[in-house]
Amino acid sequence: KKVGLMQTVTLIPGDGIGPEISTAVMKIFEAAKAPIQWEERNVTAIQAPGGKWIIPPDAKESMNRNKIGLKGPLKTPIAAGHPSMNLLLRKTFDLYANVRPCVSIEGYKTPYTNVDLVTIRENTEGEYSGIEHVIVDGVVQSIKLITEQASQRIAEYAFEYARNNKRASVTAVHKANIMRMSDGLFLRKCREAAEKNKDVKFTEMYLDTVCLNMVQDPTQFDVLVMPNLYGDILSDLCAGLIGGLGVTPSGNIGANGVAIFESVHGTAPDIAGKDMANPTALLLSAVMMLRHMGLHGHAKKIETACFDVIRDKKVLTKDLGGNSKCSEFTQEICQRVQDSK
Amino acid sequence: KKVGLMQTVTLIPGDGIGPEISTAVMKIFEAAKAPIQWEERNVTAIQAPGGKWIIPPDAKESMNRNKIGLKGPLKTPIAAGHPSMNLLLRKTFDLYANVRPCVSIEGYKTPYTNVDLVTIRENTEGEYSGIEHVIVDGVVQSIKLITEQASQRIAEYAFEYARNNKRASVTAVHKANIMRMSDGLFLRKCREAAEKNKDVKFTEMYLDTVCLNMVQDPTQFDVLVMPNLYGDILSDLCAGLIGGLGVTPSGNIGANGVAIFESVHGTAPDIAGKDMANPTALLLSAVMMLRHMGLHGHAKKIETACFDVIRDKKVLTKDLGGNSKCSEFTQEICQRVQDSK
Ligand SMILES: CC(C)[C@H](C(=O)O)[C@@H](O)C(=O)O
Ligand SMILES: CC(C)[C@H](C(=O)O)[C@@H](O)C(=O)O
Repeated sequence: KKVGLMQTVTLIPGDGIGPEISTAVMKIFEAAKAPIQWEERNVTAIQAPGGKWIIPPDAKESMNRNKIGLKGPLKTPIAAGHPSMNLLLRKTFDLYANVRPCVSIEGYKTPYTNVDLVTIRENTEGEYSGIEHVIVDGVVQSIKLITEQASQRIAEYAFEYARNNKRASVTAVHKANIMRMSDGLFLRKCREAAEKNKDVKFTEMYLDTVCLNMVQDPTQFDVLVMPNLYGDILSDLCAGLIGGLGVTPSGNIGANGVAIFESVHGTAPDIAGKDMANPTALLLSAVMMLRHMGLHGHAKKIETACFDVIRDKKVLTKDLGGNSKCSEFTQEICQRVQDSK
Repeated sequence: KKVGLMQTVTLIPGDGIGPEISTAVMKIFEAAKAPIQWEERNVTAIQAPGGKWIIPPDAKESMNRNKIGLKGPLKTPIAAGHPSMNLLLRKTFDLYANVRPCVSIEGYKTPYTNVDLVTIRENTEGEYSGIEHVIVDGVVQSIKLITEQASQRIAEYAFEYARNNKRASVTAVHKANIMRMSDGLFLRKCREAAEKNKDVKFTEMYLDTVCLNMVQDPTQFDVLVMPNLYGDILSDLCAGLIGGLGVTPSGNIGANGVAIFESVHGTAPDIAGKDMANPTALLLSAVMMLRHMGLHGHAKKIETACFDVIRDKKVLTKDLGGNSKCSEFTQEICQRVQDSK
């Protein structure tokens, strides 16, 4: 949706530090003259007549109309039967792919350098089917559901992503030696997608081997695609390699062109409202969003400013090793953005 | 089983480099005057009348009689229907706990120092149930089976292990936020075991959070206990932190007092027979075995000699960064063992 040259994005500030870091992102976007207009919505689930928990209709309508959303951290209210907000959003907008680029940040020290990989997680099925039974007393089964359709969709998305982002290879991560039929189906769909995308290199690797190799030398990996639970694990592991959830962007790609970009850290209630939060994860998610929208120039400008400020180590929030406020860190990034013109 | 003061251990040299590294271990044990007598057996599965693949009866009998085994790497023959040797051994001897101490080795550089943790993996059920179905065309389910009995057994073992090895805490690793019933049951059994073992600290953590924290600071972990698949992943991840499968020992604890200690690396057919293999993982597994048998003095002596040789960096196999042969590395450890008297 364009308004003049502006595109409207649904902004879900979220809870805890969410509003502060959202404000930071909006300020930096303004400084960069990014052609984005924000439409703020609250997505916290409400109970529909009948008792079902749903996303408020005006938030759903906004997302479906704008197609693109940016979301801060959400707390899941502790009401009986209240669903995880993460799971409800994935379901409501059929967000089938969770994409997490993990790139080492110069100047932010971790045990690794030159990490530059992307995890692509199937986000709708697998171990997250929610189907469980007690067979007899003391014996429980959970069902991992793998479908041809979802496997094909994510496999094709991985290759499409690799091509669009100039990445050389895709690795399918699986345990088809143990789950021959379910992971076997997932793997087969990856192989089929590889056949259709011969310009991108394809490899397959067991999940345990990936984990072992990842902590020994993450630079050997490029794009990784995997079923839901493996993605839950690997995406967090990889975030850890580059400094944690405070600096890792994330995007969720849905059916019908919907996409929601989000910081995946918590709401940090202990520091909320104190101007201490680090907006980097949300900002880099917003940069990912700009790229997704084709606004590569603005993306680059903002990303460079953010990385420059971190590398210079002069104005950093506490968690990044400094003693500046969120607003000061934000202001410093704005300044760099403006200077870069 | 004692023969005079000697105890008999079933030795399964295995394939590829297995025989060489087994010879190395035997030499070092001899130098240390460890009161162990070896009974060599071949476990490669054979087909019983009727077609079922089984461990050869004489190997099974030896293990059941001696109770303790030491095993090199095995290759799984590529015959139609031939089972994974790992899975078959686990099943045959009801090896319900896989135990992997991961301790940083001084002088062997990895991105981490001071790692000192133990993963305890439930080894018999969960995602490894082997039960899978096609529901309709293109829809597959795999069944994760969690039982009260197996969960209780592994939870109690974890606390017993912690106490016997003077470890302060046990962390249960789970995804009970997603698999509420199956991981929920596992977690409940861990909590119950914790109640009965109040001298050991107990914590619970989501698997994804463990992975993230693990790569950021592994020193925060002590004993970790978890269902089968999570253990498959975490045990390899943790091995990676300290240098990989070539230096990581492993033990499998079974019902009826049976226990098999093993190196978990591959058979390395490319270097087999060339006197180039690194026997460290099998040697440290044998040290773990000695401790399990209560032979703490011999365990300490051999372990110290091995670590000293690695720290001194003078006589190392190629994979450890040196250019010595397996036999030279072995001889150097024997020398240190003898000098230590
Ligand atoms: C909060 C939880 C439901 C979620 C998951 O397990 O998927 C989280 O770990 C994530 O990765 O978004
Ligand atoms: C070889 C395979 C069956 C096995 C597993 O998945 O358990 C291996 O990864 C292990 O950890 O022993």
